[in-house]
Amino acid sequence: MITIQTFLQVLDLVGTFVFAISGAVAAVNRRLDIFGILVLSFVAGNFGGITRDLLIGAVPPAALTDGRYLLVSVLAGIITFFWYAGVDKLRSPMLLFDAAGLSLFAVAGAQKAIEFGLNPIMASLLGMLTGIGGGITRDVLLAEIPQVLRSDLYAVAALAGASVVAIGNVLDLSYGVSALVGGVLCFGLRFMAIRYGWRLPVAHLSARGRAEADPSNEVDQR
Amino acid sequence: MITIQTFLQVLDLVGTFVFAISGAVAAVNRRLDIFGILVLSFVAGNFGGITRDLLIGAVPPAALTDGRYLLVSVLAGIITFFWYAGVDKLRSPMLLFDAAGLSLFAVAGAQKAIEFGLNPIMASLLGMLTGIGGGITRDVLLAEIPQVLRSDLYAVAALAGASVVAIGNVLDLSYGVSALVGGVLCFGLRFMAIRYGWRLPVAHLSARGRAEADPSNEVDQR
Amino acid sequence: MITIQTFLQVLDLVGTFVFAISGAVAAVNRRLDIFGILVLSFVAGNFGGITRDLLIGAVPPAALTDGRYLLVSVLAGIITFFWYAGVDKLRSPMLLFDAAGLSLFAVAGAQKAIEFGLNPIMASLLGMLTGIGGGITRDVLLAEIPQVLRSDLYAVAALAGASVVAIGNVLDLSYGVSALVGGVLCFGLRFMAIRYGWRLPVAHLSARGRAEADPSNEVDQR
Repeated sequence: MITIQTFLQVLDLVGTFVFAISGAVAAVNRRLDIFGILVLSFVAGNFGGITRDLLIGAVPPAALTDGRYLLVSVLAGIITFFWYAGVDKLRSPMLLFDAAGLSLFAVAGAQKAIEFGLNPIMASLLGMLTGIGGGITRDVLLAEIPQVLRSDLYAVAALAGASVVAIGNVLDLSYGVSALVGGVLCFGLRFMAIRYGWRLPVAHLSARGRAEADPSNEVDQR
Repeated sequence: MITIQTFLQVLDLVGTFVFAISGAVAAVNRRLDIFGILVLSFVAGNFGGITRDLLIGAVPPAALTDGRYLLVSVLAGIITFFWYAGVDKLRSPMLLFDAAGLSLFAVAGAQKAIEFGLNPIMASLLGMLTGIGGGITRDVLLAEIPQVLRSDLYAVAALAGASVVAIGNVLDLSYGVSALVGGVLCFGLRFMAIRYGWRLPVAHLSARGRAEADPSNEVDQR
Repeated sequence: MITIQTFLQVLDLVGTFVFAISGAVAAVNRRLDIFGILVLSFVAGNFGGITRDLLIGAVPPAALTDGRYLLVSVLAGIITFFWYAGVDKLRSPMLLFDAAGLSLFAVAGAQKAIEFGLNPIMASLLGMLTGIGGGITRDVLLAEIPQVLRSDLYAVAALAGASVVAIGNVLDLSYGVSALVGGVLCFGLRFMAIRYGWRLPVAHLSARGRAEADPSNEVDQR
């Protein structure tokens, strides 16, 4: 009999796997060797949770004590290494799994922060960080500006999902209900952003700011 | 009646605000969206203190438990987003507030490290880190070499101010006195560096080193 | 009388020194000022151990409480600043010291993780992280893709050495024996990689992946 607990654990590992694939693909594109690929897989899959655990004082982080996260990450790296063409073709369906992983990480991350006594607003932010921290570290290691800071509602979707959990906790709702609503909201926002190209606004630059920004923009387009 | 405690808290929040502005301006120049701008604001304003708190074991960090730091950071991001041209014009006065923020962060950071049992030399370094850590993380997220590692006495001013607090503690001076002297020293050094272009020396390269360094330098100028 | 304990401490400080030299040389090549050079020296020499200590909950990290690590790092930075041409000439012998430092850091890092209750696999990974974390942080601060993620068996050698210690612990071997075997293995792998250009394979790209990867590769060659 599959319990809700088992179901959530499987989802968590699937989320880690999909995030790890994103790290492995980025590493292959930058011509890292097999070891660099595995490191990027682990980082992309687990550094969101690790950073959250460091910040709330839950050391050693779960990703370092439960071997399954490492296993799943290494698996993602190896599959990408040997089967890059195939992984490359699966980009579109992978986006949906990625949205599911983001939803789950954001919701579970917020809940863990609440359990460690953080206030609702900070718990929401730490939930978001759990969802986006892996991708940020991945891009920092590749010397790029993190994609999640510049693209289509990614971090905002995570923040929205995590906020529902935090608000639900304040209102004394059961975690199951608020996690479900938060997860669906995050997934839905992300799905609409992918489907319809929803984006957040960027600021209007003054002439002076534009002159400074342009050359750096060229580098960013790489 | 305004107490010294209230005065320091106001200064701390003003420092966070000015540092957050620096993060928001950098994010706007790199064309991040509104969310990326808010993240960079928070990072630039608070990651110095957060890193210090992680290193001395003060978790969760104060910036995550006291909501006012988040509020002030978000405010700085929103103002910069809607009023970039105005913020851009205020660069020169902002430099003085930035120097004030740096002084305060360095002094308060050193004191907190001392309270957590670090030795005087490390407390000085952690005070410096409190002052410069936000700017370093901001630049790392933008895939740039941190400005504070290459410009006009910024980190050195912070280190000098923090050292005064650490030495004062060894000599059993009252914190109020050593904080004042340290803060004025840091502010003064920074002011002179801005006013007269004071800089630290760079090393002489061998021919071989120069050949290697030149191309990378071009990229750095972006 | 020199005990094994003293011998290991001297080796640890020598390792820190050599790693710090690598940070200082990189900083000089990127034209950082004297202060930036000292920061990079400290980071390259100590951030592997600091990151490990944060992850296993050993705060404040040893590198912040034992002043000798700071002293040795600053010394490396000052020597490089004033005597860059000389340091530059010593690159080849330095590679051997670097391999020795890596071996020691990996072995000692794994042992410390075991003492803090991590399981053998994670202890191996944390041993590796102790060895490569300083170099990774150095390169991130210089806005470059970390060299250890893309070159000649560096991280793999550290992982192999750390794994021997972790396996030895499972088999109840004495730490002295497994540390010696692990250290020699790490040093030997690294020596062979330098001597014969051993490298790990990179993945085959699809046509689409190659098109995306090429421009970014140009930037990487800098």
